[in-house]
Amino acid sequence: MAISKYQQLKKYYARISHLQYAQRILMWDEAVMMPEGAQMSRAHALASLNRVMHGLLTGKHMKTLIDHARHEDGLDSWDVTNLRLIERKYLRSVCLPSRLAEETTRATIQCEQAWRKLRSENNWDDFLPLFKKVFKLIRETADREGQALGLSTYDALLDLYAPGFNQSQIDQIFSRLKQALPPLMKQITHSQQNEQVILPAGPFNIARQKELGLTVMKALLFDFNRGRLDVSHHPFCSGGPSDVRMTTRYTDHEFLSSLFGICHETGHALYEQGLPSAWVDQPVGQIDSMVMHESQSLLIEMEVCRSLSFMTYLQPLIARFFEEQTAFTRENLFRLVTRVKPGYIRVDADEATYPMHIILRYELEKALFSGELPLDELPSAWNELMVNYLGLSTADNFKNGVMQDVHWPSGAFGYFPAYTLGRLMAAQVFETFKMTYPNFNAEAERGSFGQLHGWLNENIYQSTSSLPVHDLLSRLTGKPLDADAFLDHIQERYLKS
Amino acid sequence: MAISKYQQLKKYYARISHLQYAQRILMWDEAVMMPEGAQMSRAHALASLNRVMHGLLTGKHMKTLIDHARHEDGLDSWDVTNLRLIERKYLRSVCLPSRLAEETTRATIQCEQAWRKLRSENNWDDFLPLFKKVFKLIRETADREGQALGLSTYDALLDLYAPGFNQSQIDQIFSRLKQALPPLMKQITHSQQNEQVILPAGPFNIARQKELGLTVMKALLFDFNRGRLDVSHHPFCSGGPSDVRMTTRYTDHEFLSSLFGICHETGHALYEQGLPSAWVDQPVGQIDSMVMHESQSLLIEMEVCRSLSFMTYLQPLIARFFEEQTAFTRENLFRLVTRVKPGYIRVDADEATYPMHIILRYELEKALFSGELPLDELPSAWNELMVNYLGLSTADNFKNGVMQDVHWPSGAFGYFPAYTLGRLMAAQVFETFKMTYPNFNAEAERGSFGQLHGWLNENIYQSTSSLPVHDLLSRLTGKPLDADAFLDHIQERYLKS
Repeated sequence: MAISKYQQLKKYYARISHLQYAQRILMWDEAVMMPEGAQMSRAHALASLNRVMHGLLTGKHMKTLIDHARHEDGLDSWDVTNLRLIERKYLRSVCLPSRLAEETTRATIQCEQAWRKLRSENNWDDFLPLFKKVFKLIRETADREGQALGLSTYDALLDLYAPGFNQSQIDQIFSRLKQALPPLMKQITHSQQNEQVILPAGPFNIARQKELGLTVMKALLFDFNRGRLDVSHHPFCSGGPSDVRMTTRYTDHEFLSSLFGICHETGHALYEQGLPSAWVDQPVGQIDSMVMHESQSLLIEMEVCRSLSFMTYLQPLIARFFEEQTAFTRENLFRLVTRVKPGYIRVDADEATYPMHIILRYELEKALFSGELPLDELPSAWNELMVNYLGLSTADNFKNGVMQDVHWPSGAFGYFPAYTLGRLMAAQVFETFKMTYPNFNAEAERGSFGQLHGWLNENIYQSTSSLPVHDLLSRLTGKPLDADAFLDHIQERYLKS
Repeated sequence: MAISKYQQLKKYYARISHLQYAQRILMWDEAVMMPEGAQMSRAHALASLNRVMHGLLTGKHMKTLIDHARHEDGLDSWDVTNLRLIERKYLRSVCLPSRLAEETTRATIQCEQAWRKLRSENNWDDFLPLFKKVFKLIRETADREGQALGLSTYDALLDLYAPGFNQSQIDQIFSRLKQALPPLMKQITHSQQNEQVILPAGPFNIARQKELGLTVMKALLFDFNRGRLDVSHHPFCSGGPSDVRMTTRYTDHEFLSSLFGICHETGHALYEQGLPSAWVDQPVGQIDSMVMHESQSLLIEMEVCRSLSFMTYLQPLIARFFEEQTAFTRENLFRLVTRVKPGYIRVDADEATYPMHIILRYELEKALFSGELPLDELPSAWNELMVNYLGLSTADNFKNGVMQDVHWPSGAFGYFPAYTLGRLMAAQVFETFKMTYPNFNAEAERGSFGQLHGWLNENIYQSTSSLPVHDLLSRLTGKPLDADAFLDHIQERYLKS
């Protein structure tokens, strides 16, 4: 029997997936292992690999196979979704002339490298021309992709990281948060102001911190036969389903931020490791949506690990790895990991103020892409929103203001909303889970996460991209994404005691 | 000004080099970092990358550029050599149908994986059918390559690892060794039999072993900004000139084999790091000959590090890293690293008996490829030569006999001679060096290797593949490769005291 065109397409696409996996390992290596002197060779290697993948993705053969496969009978719903996802990737790539793709790669690498240095120097002026170039190229890219997909420019960017979401849906969800969060933040900080919180006293041996992290990963059911934990400057989770590369960073004067960073990345890792193995090389079996991805890391970190029940499990572990301290009671540990305080830096923000950091960036991005806001005025616009939303001025403080994130210098406009949409999804999914398993807190106190893992595996990991996020959520939780469960969670965790 | 076809060819070939570097890092990762569960994904990734590289190397564009470049004016001698080397790679690839290339990859991976298990089980019978398949495919490959290059089948294999050498040249060199070595071996073992050798008493802390190794690497002028040292089951040196990945393995009951393994790989590494940076992505600036590569590792390990002068440098270091022992005198250390004793295992052999292991394999390979020796009879033929050359029987001992090396199961027929040719080259080159710098022993005693490094850099590393090995050797040492310097060295080191 002749192999069908769709089967040929799958085989062809699998090769692209193999190379993507290779690329992720090379990027992991760059962050974790590579000696400094190899920067240029590595950049060349990644650029050549990119070029090859772009060539495969936009090849004539690809187009022919897609066109034929579309008229084939006997495709089941996963096949149909898979074909649609492949075609979408094809359309996004083929509309970009290779000149544009190469210029963009070059400009973003250059801008990101300069940013590392210029940020620490608080130097916006030298950053601006490089940043303008990146913005111009990303706008051209998004214009073209939008045309190919029938989306507005900014929607084309949103759709890349949060497929299925557009500006008007996000506006609606975020306006609810904008309205509800500020009064909650005020109440919480007021109620926390008289709480006594004892800081743990360091130093904390780094080898023991690592052992503690590995113990928690194991309890959360990370599979060490298909992954590992290392150290990098910025924590991340990459690799592939059978080869998850998680990183963290340690400092000896404090251990909680590394530990909760590990919890966060473990959430990403469990999702990766739980993907349906029969579809490992096809888009339908991969993670298409950063909203989904972030929802899984935040579900584990925020819903599960920053809970009082988890502290019951964690307290004796901490006491075992480090010497006993008065700070190591479950209540004090819980207070330590649920402090709410407006701050400059997004990645350091608590879960109650975090969405305001995202809304600020989202509104600035909208204004940039609509042309309302020129790039030169970005710092002052940033400052204005920071003062409004978090009561903090970033005037002349570029470093802790507009220059704090790697996303924009590296060209990832449209990414930020996925963090908060993911957080809301985590709350909504976890609410349903807890209704199904009302005894979960008792399980968590014992460090037993098999039930949760099984449920997430069945309902999220194994489904991954076979359904649009809204359909998956509706089927699982009874409604599309909204802010209800998240706002209930904030009330429950911070204002009920 | 229009870019010339040769310049276009260089640019095109550079991309292949970038991908080769990516491939080497992925293979390093597989040996050093990868979790076990990723084996299949990694195999797929490497196969897809291979396929892409084969596609680039055999593409029509490549042929057109080569044909045009050949008629271009203004190419200097490096350009001409570079073009010839590129064409040779093209010819070697284009003559192989992709069916054959893929079947060979699959069969060698399968055979090598099975070999790991079957060797430890001493199981030749189950190994044989897989091995036959590999042999058949390698013979077909070599037949085709030989036809494309105008070489006999076995010469085509030899030429891959030892370009410029053929069977009749190697016959001549090896017959000299076959004649001269056995009586020398007898004299040496006789003279060593009354020597008192004190074995160092372990355990030796592995972190300190590592520190010792790094200290020696530094003294030998390994550049840690462009490389690193890790642990793998089989030591190797890979990566690229700006990203050398060296590995070793440690055991706590003994430290010398790991230390001298490090010295050996450092020799490879220095060559890589010394390659001419302007030609990093072109064959003329890369290492084409395994004879050259092995000559550099063996020069450092055998000529430099296993010398009495080096022991003068090493002795206080060893005493610093481990506690003082009566075994740690320079004379005793020297005796420890220069013991001559016929053994079963090639990789454990001393420098005097080592060539006999190679000659044995070389003679068996010739007989296999001429059709004289059927594969079924390989173990008995092996045994016969082992008894003749080293006085040891391997009857029914497949594990320590015919199945001991990874080369054959992985399809690397024709590789072995490069080790001994490289050893002879090391001796010949080092002899010339010592004539130029008669004070070297004093330098080595002080752990000062800048002079040696500068000389090798100028005369070997920077020239790399710009000259055929014979021409390079003739220019540097006054004659093409022969066994004189090596045999003198054996006399000098083992029979003069």
